[in-house]
This record gives sequence, C-alpha cells and structure tokens, in this order.
Amino acid sequence: MKALRKTKAAFGAELVEIPVPQIQPHEVLVKVHACSICGTDVSIYEWNKWAQGRIKTIPQTMGHEFTGEVVQVGAHCNRLKIGDIVSVETHIPDNYSKQSLTGQMHIAKEMKIVGVDRDGSMAEFIAIPELVGWKNDVNMPTHLASVQEPLGNAVYCTLVTPVHGQSIAVFGDGPIGLFSVAVARAAGATNIILVGLEDFRLQLAKQVGADHVINARHENPVQKIMDITGGDGVDIVSEMSGSPIAMEQCFEVVRRGGFLRMFGIFKDKVNVDINDHIIFKGITIHGINGRLMFDTWFTLSNLLKSGRLNIEPLITHKLPFESYEQGFNLMLETPKKCSKVVLYMDKSRMK
Amino acid sequence: MKALRKTKAAFGAELVEIPVPQIQPHEVLVKVHACSICGTDVSIYEWNKWAQGRIKTIPQTMGHEFTGEVVQVGAHCNRLKIGDIVSVETHIPDNYSKQSLTGQMHIAKEMKIVGVDRDGSMAEFIAIPELVGWKNDVNMPTHLASVQEPLGNAVYCTLVTPVHGQSIAVFGDGPIGLFSVAVARAAGATNIILVGLEDFRLQLAKQVGADHVINARHENPVQKIMDITGGDGVDIVSEMSGSPIAMEQCFEVVRRGGFLRMFGIFKDKVNVDINDHIIFKGITIHGINGRLMFDTWFTLSNLLKSGRLNIEPLITHKLPFESYEQGFNLMLETPKKCSKVVLYMDKSRMK
Amino acid sequence: MKALRKTKAAFGAELVEIPVPQIQPHEVLVKVHACSICGTDVSIYEWNKWAQGRIKTIPQTMGHEFTGEVVQVGAHCNRLKIGDIVSVETHIPDNYSKQSLTGQMHIAKEMKIVGVDRDGSMAEFIAIPELVGWKNDVNMPTHLASVQEPLGNAVYCTLVTPVHGQSIAVFGDGPIGLFSVAVARAAGATNIILVGLEDFRLQLAKQVGADHVINARHENPVQKIMDITGGDGVDIVSEMSGSPIAMEQCFEVVRRGGFLRMFGIFKDKVNVDINDHIIFKGITIHGINGRLMFDTWFTLSNLLKSGRLNIEPLITHKLPFESYEQGFNLMLETPKKCSKVVLYMDKSRMK
Amino acid sequence: MKALRKTKAAFGAELVEIPVPQIQPHEVLVKVHACSICGTDVSIYEWNKWAQGRIKTIPQTMGHEFTGEVVQVGAHCNRLKIGDIVSVETHIPDNYSKQSLTGQMHIAKEMKIVGVDRDGSMAEFIAIPELVGWKNDVNMPTHLASVQEPLGNAVYCTLVTPVHGQSIAVFGDGPIGLFSVAVARAAGATNIILVGLEDFRLQLAKQVGADHVINARHENPVQKIMDITGGDGVDIVSEMSGSPIAMEQCFEVVRRGGFLRMFGIFKDKVNVDINDHIIFKGITIHGINGRLMFDTWFTLSNLLKSGRLNIEPLITHKLPFESYEQGFNLMLETPKKCSKVVLYMDKSRMK
Repeated sequence: MKALRKTKAAFGAELVEIPVPQIQPHEVLVKVHACSICGTDVSIYEWNKWAQGRIKTIPQTMGHEFTGEVVQVGAHCNRLKIGDIVSVETHIPDNYSKQSLTGQMHIAKEMKIVGVDRDGSMAEFIAIPELVGWKNDVNMPTHLASVQEPLGNAVYCTLVTPVHGQSIAVFGDGPIGLFSVAVARAAGATNIILVGLEDFRLQLAKQVGADHVINARHENPVQKIMDITGGDGVDIVSEMSGSPIAMEQCFEVVRRGGFLRMFGIFKDKVNVDINDHIIFKGITIHGINGRLMFDTWFTLSNLLKSGRLNIEPLITHKLPFESYEQGFNLMLETPKKCSKVVLYMDKSRMK
Repeated sequence: MKALRKTKAAFGAELVEIPVPQIQPHEVLVKVHACSICGTDVSIYEWNKWAQGRIKTIPQTMGHEFTGEVVQVGAHCNRLKIGDIVSVETHIPDNYSKQSLTGQMHIAKEMKIVGVDRDGSMAEFIAIPELVGWKNDVNMPTHLASVQEPLGNAVYCTLVTPVHGQSIAVFGDGPIGLFSVAVARAAGATNIILVGLEDFRLQLAKQVGADHVINARHENPVQKIMDITGGDGVDIVSEMSGSPIAMEQCFEVVRRGGFLRMFGIFKDKVNVDINDHIIFKGITIHGINGRLMFDTWFTLSNLLKSGRLNIEPLITHKLPFESYEQGFNLMLETPKKCSKVVLYMDKSRMK
Repeated sequence: MKALRKTKAAFGAELVEIPVPQIQPHEVLVKVHACSICGTDVSIYEWNKWAQGRIKTIPQTMGHEFTGEVVQVGAHCNRLKIGDIVSVETHIPDNYSKQSLTGQMHIAKEMKIVGVDRDGSMAEFIAIPELVGWKNDVNMPTHLASVQEPLGNAVYCTLVTPVHGQSIAVFGDGPIGLFSVAVARAAGATNIILVGLEDFRLQLAKQVGADHVINARHENPVQKIMDITGGDGVDIVSEMSGSPIAMEQCFEVVRRGGFLRMFGIFKDKVNVDINDHIIFKGITIHGINGRLMFDTWFTLSNLLKSGRLNIEPLITHKLPFESYEQGFNLMLETPKKCSKVVLYMDKSRMK
Repeated sequence: MKALRKTKAAFGAELVEIPVPQIQPHEVLVKVHACSICGTDVSIYEWNKWAQGRIKTIPQTMGHEFTGEVVQVGAHCNRLKIGDIVSVETHIPDNYSKQSLTGQMHIAKEMKIVGVDRDGSMAEFIAIPELVGWKNDVNMPTHLASVQEPLGNAVYCTLVTPVHGQSIAVFGDGPIGLFSVAVARAAGATNIILVGLEDFRLQLAKQVGADHVINARHENPVQKIMDITGGDGVDIVSEMSGSPIAMEQCFEVVRRGGFLRMFGIFKDKVNVDINDHIIFKGITIHGINGRLMFDTWFTLSNLLKSGRLNIEPLITHKLPFESYEQGFNLMLETPKKCSKVVLYMDKSRMK
C-alpha cells in the first residue's frame, strides 16, 4: 500500500510502498478514506526541535486525523464491525493506571499517540485498537468525519466549563482556535473574541461566529479586549497560540474569578506573574490535552449531526493524497491562506 | 396612582386608585413601564385553591414581572440611581440564613415574593429593595425587559447543568416551557423536544428552536421520544407542566444517568417509582425555584443582548394596562392562543 | 466444588457440589477466600416478591461480596495475574452504551450483576470478567477485603457531593447505613445523625462516629433533627431504609438548598410532595446504585489502607461457609443482633 | 485607645494612643479581645518590598486576624447586635461588580482589606462593616476565634476540590501550611505530606495529622514524594511557600490529571514549563486568595465546633498586646520556633 512516511531525520517525508499492516487480536484494520493535516504533522514534516526530541522511530507513517472503513476485525474485538465508518481517538490509553480507571484515560500514564508513537493514517490502511475507534454516522461527509479529532480538541478545551452567557477570548488563529470560535458560538457564548495574526484566518473566524477579531500585529489585544468588556476582562480565555506574548495577554484579559484554558504548546518555559495573574485574580486554569474519552466525542458528534456547528468554511483545502507536498506547503507558508487541509486516499469522496 | 389589586377573596381583580408607596431607606421607587402576566398572577386572579392558601393580605396589588425607571432612592441605597431602567428579582431574601450567606439567597428561609407577600407591580409605581433591582441596558426593548424574571426561571432551570451537545425534552408548553426551548437552542442543545397540549404553542416552540414537538393529546410522548432517541431516552428532562401524567412520562424518557429538572407545580402529591425511575436509573434531580442571584441574571441579560436568544415570537400580546381583563382572559381560555402577555402602564413604549 | 445455590423457587438455598466454572478468554478464575452476605442475598434466600420478579435462572449460585485469589487467567486478559488477591465490582457493564463510554458504566444499559444475573461467589471458585476485578493490597485483612463492595455503596452514596463541614442524616441502620456513618466521619462531616429501628445497630453507629442516634420506634426523627439543627434541617440526607415513612421524614429534614441521596429500595411507589419538598426547597436528589467504576474503589481502598475509616465494629460475625444458615438467620431475625456477616470458604483466614 | 500603628515608612511599628473610631451607619464597633499576627503583618512590620508598594496610608493601624465583642451598631445594620462575639472576613467587597453579585465577592474588583487598605485590629477597638462580621459561638475559646481568618485560607485552599480518599502534598510550613495539614486530615485525605524547612514546624505538622514530613533542606522532596506514591505523584498539591524551587517541585509531583492550588506569594515572576507541567499532565490549577463568603466560614466554624479539627498545637504563643515586639520577633527569627502567635488586648481571656 501507499504510505507517507518519515524516512529520514530531516525536513520532508516520502510516499512509499509498504505492506498492509497486520492487526493484533484487539485491533481493527481501517481502509483510510481521507486524512487531514495536523500542526503536529507539520512539526514532524519540517523536523523541528520538538519533533527531533519526540519521534523515536524512523521510518514511521505520519498522520492521525482521519476517517475510513473497517475492513478487518481482530479476534478479541466485539464492538466494531466490518463496514463501519470510523474516526479514531488518537490517544491510546494504558489499561491499568489510575487515570485510565477513573475517566482520564486520555492522559493515562503510558498513553501512546497514533502517528507519533506508532504508524499513522497517512496511508491506504491503518491498524488501530478497537477501543479507540469511533463509529460515525454513515452519511457524515468525509471531510467533516476526518477533522473530528482536532475538532475534539476545540470542543474539550472550549467547553471544559460551560460557556453559555459567557464572554470568551481565543488567542491563536490556527485551525483549533478557529474551531473553538465555532464551538463557542454553537454552545451559547455571548461575546466571542478571536486574537490572531493572519487576516485570512480572522475573516474565517467572523464567518463561523466571532463577534470581534483582533489582529495582534496591528492592534493591542489587551487594550481592545478591555474596551470591549468595559474594563472587566473576559470570563473565559483559551490560549491556543503557544506564544509567550499571547500568554501574558491572556493573563491580563481574563477577569477576576475567570477561567483560563491552556492548550498551545510553547517553545520554552514561560515567565508567569503567579501573584497578580493567578492568585490575586482567583482564576482557575485547565491544562487541556486530547479529548475526554468519550464524552467529547458524543458532544462533537451531536454538534455536527444537529447542524448547530458551522465548521464548513474552516476546511479550506481538499487535495488528493499524492499532493501532500502542496498540503504541507500551504500549512507552512506565510501569510497563511489555509485553515484545515484534507488529503484524500479515496478520491471518489473528494467533493 | 392606578393599581390592579386583589380586593376580594374571589375571582377577578379591581383597577383602583391608591397612594404612591412610601419607600424605606433600603428601597427605591420605580415608575412601572410595563408588567407581564405570570401564571401565578392568573392563579391569584381566578382565586384557585393554591391562591386561597397562599395569599395572606387583601387588598394587595398584583404582579411581579416588570420593568420601569427608578424615580426615588432611599437613604441607605448606593448602587441604583435615579433614571436607571430596572427589572427586579422578585425573591426578596433574608440577610442572615445559611442560604443567603452561601449563594442560595433565592431560597432563603424567610424569602418574600413581590406580588405574593407584598404589593406588586401592576401599578404605576412600586417600592422595591435596592438589593433586588437589576439595572437594564437603556436600549433593551420594554417587552423584553419586562419578561426577564420568567425568562430567568427558564434560564436557571434549563442550564442548571450544561446542555451543549445534549438532548433535552421539555414537558409543558406554557411560557416558561417555550422560553426553555429558546434557551436550550441558544446554549447548544442538539436535540430539543417540546411536549405540550396546545397546537398554537407547539408552533411557537418550532419557531424558537424545537427539533420535535409532541401534542400529548394526539401522540404518546414516551413512544415518540424513545423513537427519536433510538431507545436510549434523553439526556435532560424539564418537567414544567405540573401534570402527574407528564411527571411519569418524564421519568420514563430520561436516560440512565441523565438529569431531571422539576419546575412545574402539582395540585397534589405525586406517586413516584423511586426504585426504577430514580435509583436504578442513577439520575440526578434538581428542584428549581426562582433564579440564582445573580448568576442567572447575568446569563439571561447576556443572552438577550447578544441576540443569540430568540424569544420575540413568545411575546404574543401587548395591551394597555387598562385592558388587563382581556389579558387575563387570554391566559385563561382554551384552546390557548397566547404565550406571554404584556400590560403597558406607559403606552408610549407599546410598540 | 461446593456452592450455595438457589435450587428452587422457594425459601432457602442448598449447599451442593458442582463443577468448577470454565473461564472465557476475557475472564479470570478466582478461588474464593470469603464472601459476606448482602441484603440482596437475603431477599433471594427468603424468596421475596422482588426476588421472584428479578431472578431469571434457577439453579444459580448466590453471593457477590467477596475476596479471593486469581488462580487462572483467560487468554485476552492482560491486567490481572495469577496470585493476585482481588475483590470485584459486581456490576458488569456492556461495552457500547453511552453510559459505558462516558464514565457511567455502573449503570450501563445492559449491565449484569454477579449473583443475580449470573453465578455468584458463595462457592469455592467463581469466574469473573477481568474488567471488574479489583486488585487488593496483599495484607488487607480478609474480612475487610470481602466487604468492599457494599462499603463502596456507602462511599459512593455518602460522598457523591462533599460532606466536609456538613451535617448529614442517614435513615436506615442496615450495614450500608452504618458504613455510611463511618464514611461520613472519615470524610469530615461535622454533625452525623443516624435514624434506625434497632438499638443494637444504633450502638454500633455510635462506635463508628455518629454524633446522634435516633430510634424511630421511640422518638420522632423530624422533631429531634430539627432540634439538633436549630430548626434549619440538615445539609445532606441519605435515605437507606426503603421505608415510605422514612422517605417522608427525609424530605422534611433536608434543609432548603440541601442534598438528598436515594439508595434504599421500596416495596411500592411512594407518594411525594414535589412542590414543597423538592421545588420550593430547591434540593438536589441523587439516585444511587452501585459504585463509580473505579473512582469509588480508589476512594474506599485509600480510606481502608490509611486507617482513617473505622468499620471494624460493623463486621459482627465471621462464620465458616457451611454455617450459612446461621448467617442468613442472623440477618432475618428481629430484633437484629448483627450488622455484616462474613462466610469463610478458606477457614485459615477466619480470625 | 491603644493602637499598634505603622507610623513611618521603615522597620517596626509604634504602640500609640488614638481616638476610638467613629462608625458609619453600615458599620459596627468591636472591642477587640485578641488579634493574631499574620505573615502580611510581618511584611508590613519589617517594611519589605511588597509592603512598600502596597501600603498607601501612613499612619495606619495594623492587624486583621481578630475576635472581639460588638459594642456599638450603626443605624443601617440589622444582623449583628450589641454583645455579639465576632470575627471578621477581612476582604471588604464592593457591592456592584459581577464578582460581588455572583458569589465571588472575596475577589471583587474594588475589594479592600482590613489592616492593609484601612485601619486594622491591633487596637482596643475597630470599626468594621456589618457585612463582614461573622458571629461566633459564645463559648469558642478566644485563641481559636482569633485565628479563624487564616484558618479560612487553609480551609478554602485545601477543600476547593474534595480531598477525601486523596493524597495531598502541602509545600510550605508556615501557619497556613500547617493549618492545611489539619484541615486535610479532618476532611479525609488519606495520604498527607508536608514539605518545609523548619524542624520545629514539621513536628507540629505530625501532631496535627501529616503522614509524612519532608525537610527540603535535607531531603529531595520530589524523590521522596515519588517514592511514597509509587511513582504516580500526588492527587492534590498546595503551593504555600512562595518559593520558585518549591513551585517547580509542586509541578513535578502532582499526578497527571491532578489538582494544584496556588496560594504562596512570590518575590518575582516564576518560570513555568507550561507544556510538560500543565498541558500534557492535564492538571487543574486554582488561584486561591481569601475565603469564600461565607461558605468557607460555615465550614471552618463547623469543623472547629465539632472538634474534628485539631489546630490547638498550632497556636504556639499567647502574649499580652504590649509584648507585640516579642511576637513579631518570634515570627521573624530563624530557625523558627513558633507557628501562630496571638496578642491579647483583653488579658483576662489569655489562658
């Protein structure tokens, strides 16, 4: 089968022929319909510092945001069936830690990630544990089915405490920041602010429900948000940029007694004014990673099915699998002209 | 001033002239712009069994859902100012009970209710404690400002646990049931079912966001809801009808591990299958009364200001104060052809 | 092997010889050290109305509160090992329902119960799914290890909302009511009241931490509790008796804004004053069944290991397995002179 | 009257004669029985950098942890009465911010602190707003009544999420760290670890319930805690030292999915590894300041009254008011030989 693999500890990846994977008794084999490109994939592709420290196995197939059809089922499986259309939770938990036994399996001690710790889904077939397979509605469009994993990040992060009737500022205009705007809108946030750097993406944010967008290259986000909120700050802030400057601004704009979600990954440690920004303000901070298994999947699936959630404008590019270089280049170039890019292994579904 | 008062222990009320009330040092005087009619007002008007047992003072001015302008401020007041446009929280708490001191002042032990335990707002002026005054945006339309108190019931009840991504069934098509549909829609519930008896109101429910409406005169709600939910039942049920038959149906359709809110008032005790419907199902029940002071007011105010919440179709009638009989008759007649009815003391605002 | 089985649809049970069970690939075989007697076992033994309606298979081995040693492990198992000392969660969940996939597997739609829906643990050996096995500390005394399942009911019910600094009244002096007193004491409840009928058990309640005990045969619990609480009622009430009279008293003594847990099973439906007791009081009710999998097990295990929890006085009888009739008679007789009765299959552990 | 005042922008304070304060209509006058010394008082006394930046008014009376008797009541007051024995919540909220109106008045935007923003309680009399007066049981010992304010910090911080059945590590052996150990013990934490620097205080920690104490001068807390917890880390960590080294250790020992409370005040910003310590671990952080008004007061009052909470060993010194220099010196010296020091204005209560 064709697979896009990291074959060298250097920039890029290679589309190669490898055997179809053999499944274990607790696994299913999925024929991949489409796979979208994650920021993590881009890090591995460009082989940045994080990737150099994190990726242990080369060669390894890339990718983890996908949808496809179950074509083979292991002997110990009893939930999924041949013909099921699935997406997957890419955090593969252990089965014995306190985390796994108390509803936190997404951060289990020995958790492994598809496309990072084992072969991924930028291939014609992938073997995955039945446990992490999520059965989709058969008539969910392929491009929406494919992006459920990153959408799940946005759903978990945005809704970790309720947003109805609340103001929320999202810092970061990457795909998950943009998804978060759409999620906040669907869940009743009543004042939604996106702070970013790319006009193309700020326009997308408006399309999916932002009340205010701020380009931090041209405006001071703190000043602007304080104006918008009458000097009180916002109830909820999501840091999704990984920028230390944005992090500081997040602390400044969250209101006393408000909530801060941390999701964006930083290059280095960050200097934090714990006294004034955490203690005296009395805020609550949630570190967000992955998705709740499987509460988040029920929520995102219901939001998509109901039509309440508008993420259609955020899937900006649909490309054949073989055009993967074009896809990665779109993600790497500046100024950015894309949000989520989907690669199709099954071109008949590319519409 | 003119005031609509209960003057006799019998059906009806009388529009009479009485002196403008004197305020206490902790009170403000409000010139009433408009006052909507609550089901409680209807009970007092028709003098049903509940009203006979509950109303201690006759004569007494009726009404509690209103908006108006502050025209006088007591010596101990320091938050509200002359000229402020206000609505009021009608639950006047004590200031010493554990409830009042721990964020539950809406159910304080010695709590008093405007228009039930003291003179109400179906009058040209009303004196209210500053504590329960809620300052409105000056440009909020009068009819919306007036119905914030009952809307608050719907907001508190519907959102006592988050509804985003959840299915919800509301039993009862009175104004608060209909408000609840709109609130659930604004807050991201993804499958909203209203069960009622009046086709006029079921149509309104559809207009404000119900995915399914069920007329319990013609269809079996349990059967229908089980069909809609694939046999699983709904995540959240709000009982807003006060009907023992509906109560039983609520217990049958709430899913295992789901949530039940109880809001509707019953004529008598209700027979409950505690084993099968509460314990083995592992549900959580919230008794709902009033509004959180003042979390609910912030939420409803933000929902209205943001335009996320569509309740415009639910205010079906706007009448001059003097046409109060027409208003009460609309609420009493069957089949019902109204939802919320607003009486205007200031006719210049009636548009 | 020896097994105590329900062999006829009538009072009693029979100690018979049957083959050691064959395990499935996902199961382990446990050599039972000891098994305590549950109220459910007594219902099945005396063949009351509930048992007649619930038990589908005869003959079937009784019992589900036990501890023992893993002596064989199925091919698909990978967590438990031969030699592990285990107790078990007796609720065997399905693996596909929303409940099972969102942390509510203890109330999964197709959940099965050991000793009710399949052969139980009043036998020398039992086969159980690995999923529900809980590995004990090797030096936990056998009688404590054996009662963890019912202790888990008390832990889940008592601590479903925090009790620290709260007053709590437990209605029902059965073993789980008594365990609840000990749990409330260990978790910082500051005013603990037990209401029961049996002086022997009320004395045990005092030994494990009750501040007040009330024998409802001789005193009016409502009057007494209102006196104790200065007329405010208690913050938290656990109904653990299954008596409609107690249920009514629970509703009367829970304070406005307080919490009510429902655990006791009733013979029939119960008449409830929803208006005054649930809505106007603004209480929250939790239906409690089973134990959280596996949060409750971590909590109870830590409470036992730390020595904070004193339940030693509540295990009143230790009998050899063959004396099962004496055990059941102790549970059936009145006035009651027992709390928890443990039957030992391995007599060397009976100390 | 006598008052201990900051009279110069320099080390120390002066015991001077000033007039008894005049009360406002919403205030009461309290005759002070005793006042304990807070770390904040020590900062003001020694005039450190924080104090230089924070204290706006000189001269000003110091102190805020006290108890006394109400001897005069303002015209607008209606809850407290002459003769009431009170302690006070030292955070005086505004009455209009979202915080104050939604149960977060302890962090209200314009909140003022007794003894910091206005005259304090190291005096024979103090005027305080009735709103922040907490009526004590008449037979509560004076030294316990006096330390309720700092005890409240420990209660709020320790119990912001439940501790029953949880492991908890407290970093910091100041009085509030020690109180936290006692509170965790009373509320059912099952593995309590105190990390500190002073052997005198570590011994006190053992007396009030620590399972393990670690002197960070002699042992590596991270290594030791990982050993104690079998490599998993602790469920809950409270940072109460204000040391950047301790902060880093807190992040290292909190388990994946665990809780971190931040209470200790730092000299400077702190460098934080947001990726590995907050996001990938999926922890929740609570910034803690003050006490919940008045949930925390009910909890601490019940814990004290019930006798469940053992803080007696933590009040190490009782001195006459005039010996204030000795009191401050005890707090300043190293190695520390004190925990909480109480100054008595009413020497008849000093026992």
